[in-house]
Amino acid sequence: VEPNAPSVKTEVPGPNTKNLIQETSKIQSAQAVALFCDFEKSQGNYLVDADENVLLDCFQQISSLPLGYNHPDLLETCNTAAAQSAMINRPAMAMFPNRDFPALIDKTLLKVAPRGLGQVITMACGSCSNENAFKSVFFWYMKKKRGVELPPLGDPAYESCMRNQPPGAPKLSILSFEGAFHGRTLGALSTTHSKPIHKIDVPSFDWPIAPFPRLKYPLEEFERENAAEEARCLEVAEDLVEQWKTKAPVAGLIIEPVQAEGGDFHASGDYFRKLKKMTERQGIAFICDEVQTGMAVTGRWWAHEHFEMEKSPDVVTFAKKMLTGGYYFSDEIRWDIGYRVFNTWMGDPVKLHLLEKTLKVVNRDNLVEQAGKTGKHLIGGLKQLEKLHPGVANGSRGLGTFSAIDILGEGIRDKVHKQLLQKGVLAGVCGAATMRFRPCLLFTPTHADMLVDNLDQAIRDV
Amino acid sequence: VEPNAPSVKTEVPGPNTKNLIQETSKIQSAQAVALFCDFEKSQGNYLVDADENVLLDCFQQISSLPLGYNHPDLLETCNTAAAQSAMINRPAMAMFPNRDFPALIDKTLLKVAPRGLGQVITMACGSCSNENAFKSVFFWYMKKKRGVELPPLGDPAYESCMRNQPPGAPKLSILSFEGAFHGRTLGALSTTHSKPIHKIDVPSFDWPIAPFPRLKYPLEEFERENAAEEARCLEVAEDLVEQWKTKAPVAGLIIEPVQAEGGDFHASGDYFRKLKKMTERQGIAFICDEVQTGMAVTGRWWAHEHFEMEKSPDVVTFAKKMLTGGYYFSDEIRWDIGYRVFNTWMGDPVKLHLLEKTLKVVNRDNLVEQAGKTGKHLIGGLKQLEKLHPGVANGSRGLGTFSAIDILGEGIRDKVHKQLLQKGVLAGVCGAATMRFRPCLLFTPTHADMLVDNLDQAIRDV
Ligand code: FES
Repeated sequence: VEPNAPSVKTEVPGPNTKNLIQETSKIQSAQAVALFCDFEKSQGNYLVDADENVLLDCFQQISSLPLGYNHPDLLETCNTAAAQSAMINRPAMAMFPNRDFPALIDKTLLKVAPRGLGQVITMACGSCSNENAFKSVFFWYMKKKRGVELPPLGDPAYESCMRNQPPGAPKLSILSFEGAFHGRTLGALSTTHSKPIHKIDVPSFDWPIAPFPRLKYPLEEFERENAAEEARCLEVAEDLVEQWKTKAPVAGLIIEPVQAEGGDFHASGDYFRKLKKMTERQGIAFICDEVQTGMAVTGRWWAHEHFEMEKSPDVVTFAKKMLTGGYYFSDEIRWDIGYRVFNTWMGDPVKLHLLEKTLKVVNRDNLVEQAGKTGKHLIGGLKQLEKLHPGVANGSRGLGTFSAIDILGEGIRDKVHKQLLQKGVLAGVCGAATMRFRPCLLFTPTHADMLVDNLDQAIRDV
Repeated sequence: VEPNAPSVKTEVPGPNTKNLIQETSKIQSAQAVALFCDFEKSQGNYLVDADENVLLDCFQQISSLPLGYNHPDLLETCNTAAAQSAMINRPAMAMFPNRDFPALIDKTLLKVAPRGLGQVITMACGSCSNENAFKSVFFWYMKKKRGVELPPLGDPAYESCMRNQPPGAPKLSILSFEGAFHGRTLGALSTTHSKPIHKIDVPSFDWPIAPFPRLKYPLEEFERENAAEEARCLEVAEDLVEQWKTKAPVAGLIIEPVQAEGGDFHASGDYFRKLKKMTERQGIAFICDEVQTGMAVTGRWWAHEHFEMEKSPDVVTFAKKMLTGGYYFSDEIRWDIGYRVFNTWMGDPVKLHLLEKTLKVVNRDNLVEQAGKTGKHLIGGLKQLEKLHPGVANGSRGLGTFSAIDILGEGIRDKVHKQLLQKGVLAGVCGAATMRFRPCLLFTPTHADMLVDNLDQAIRDV
């Protein structure tokens, strides 16, 4: 059973975490470790750390657990013959899939496919989902250009690609956005622009980067400015597509429905609808990265559904709370020649079995609806905090429970974040001054109140 | 219990596989599917397919299963609280590891670390293992250049890297080899040169590519030619490092101990020792990709141990049979600032639990030794085939059971491969004319005889 409230016994992180960090430091840099955990003792919204502190977890493993800790239904799945077989007989899934593969995809990924996207492929993490989405978009772009999926036999492309040279390895690009995060392998990293520490010293593709709107809050007060900002950003994006036509044509763009790692930056439905139209006008693909925003947390299954675009994005990538990585794509994007998108594992069927059960729980327990309701309640609470702490708390924003608030003042955000942790509430940070909340789908208005009350207290303390 | 022999009931692939391919084709290209499988019914060296054909599996999910199918010891692991907790509470392992993390690494990866490589980091697949190995090597190279791990605050690198531009995103390169395979995300793919279908239409880093020796068989007959070929390849590699100093300096090279996907090409210990010396002379890192060659299959834990290099490679990457991805590295390569190599999951602790048990079984059952012995027996058998089929069977080669034979003549290899499958023996292919064998560690001389006899028959049939 889930605890009723956090309970903190030591400074957080406590002595056990500190010892384990020291031990881990012998074999690798352990600077990113926040807490060592006792997952077997954790439950639902509550994470138990190595010092037996019980923490209300509003971050949930960087937003990657849909049903919190030790969900009893998932434990059931662990004990099924199908899941255990998948665990010890991990297949090369694109070459030797298990005979339940199409049925399993049908019961899982196809059940929650974005409107109009009937094609889907599994991957193992967000980075390879995005990298392979890029590849699919390059295939599609070149196919449009030459009319057939592959060049005729004997074409110089076959030889030049082996030397990493055009025409076989064409000079094409993916347009991305300032502040974006799409992963950290070299291709994905070339579209990531959230923090220098992610990028410094790593060679990069020279690809175009457009500004992402930076809206002012409260939205009601800045309607005109915000509309102008979005119009400016749209114009620069299209200008870049035009300018790069001679240098390295843009085959597609990748964008998050909410810029997460960069600082929880939102843009309006109007912006996204217009951006989609721009891609149609320019003949480039629209890749929507739902790695962090997908799986119901925003109160809709996919965050981009909030934008009510006329046509879905051409490609939607996912990972994290979906448990498996992968991407949906339209019939138009589909390629048909084997081994073009391929790797040994192509995901992990264990995750599909866990996803199957997760979808049943989400459906049975109305968790999409709950995320919407809890989110409204939570953002209401954060707005109250703005009134209580003017000039410190600002810019409360969110879709469902996918939410954030800015804590202004040099270094104050980090102090508040730390103070909140001492009270037994674990939140995330992103950008320079933002606290972000990424609870699991079991988060209720009661948990939201607990978060807001403790945050209020933490701000007072600091 | 493992069957005694293959048993084939239908044409392979049979009607059930064909139906399932059609079903799968609705949601994605299914051209790469060889067989749908019934993993729950498979056992040890024998794969049962969706048509109930029982096949002696000498390919083992693209060389990724160490203990074959449904190993009883691994099934035990599935039922432990620790593995089940890891399965349903997948952590963000570099930020919130479980309290057993350092102990688990100690019992697994450190137990089989290559000599002198005391640092190790986990990843989720071979591609991200190699991509992050590249990043680590770039960090090391830049640190050597400036004397400190990061540039001083305010350095223009911090701003330029956010725009994908030097100096923050420096023009550096990784030297790779013709015929190499290191993965298919955009960075890894820039070092992969096995087949055009892997690369065509995908933009690539313009990085240098050196020839990998192409030895002639039998080795005894071509000693002088082969030594000259290796000397030539070494010279070109060093020339490329020199030439690229002005264009995009080589920070490191990546090489497989045996070029696998490219066609099972071997080079001598002398070649590898001299290549290592060259990297030391040039101040670049030596990354050894043991994704396919690692985990005992060659009769040593790591294939590069056969080369008796004076110093270990600077970085050794792994995945596949190791169950988890990741890489070992030297103290010198180690970086110390957090979040430089980072992603949400950083591997999957379930795989570490399975690896722990796998290592116990390998040790208990003397499977390293067995791989060596079985391999000698198998290659002996393949050499017999050469005598029986002169001009058709040629170039038997291998380390342990990691072995291959060429089947000469236009299209003959593919026919033999198919015919062998009809007899109930599943092998792999690579390069243009090669059949490769990648059995699991339970493969014994008896299995090897069965493979060789059936291959003999298949060649006769074709
Ligand atoms: S790149 Fe996604 S799992 Fe390795």
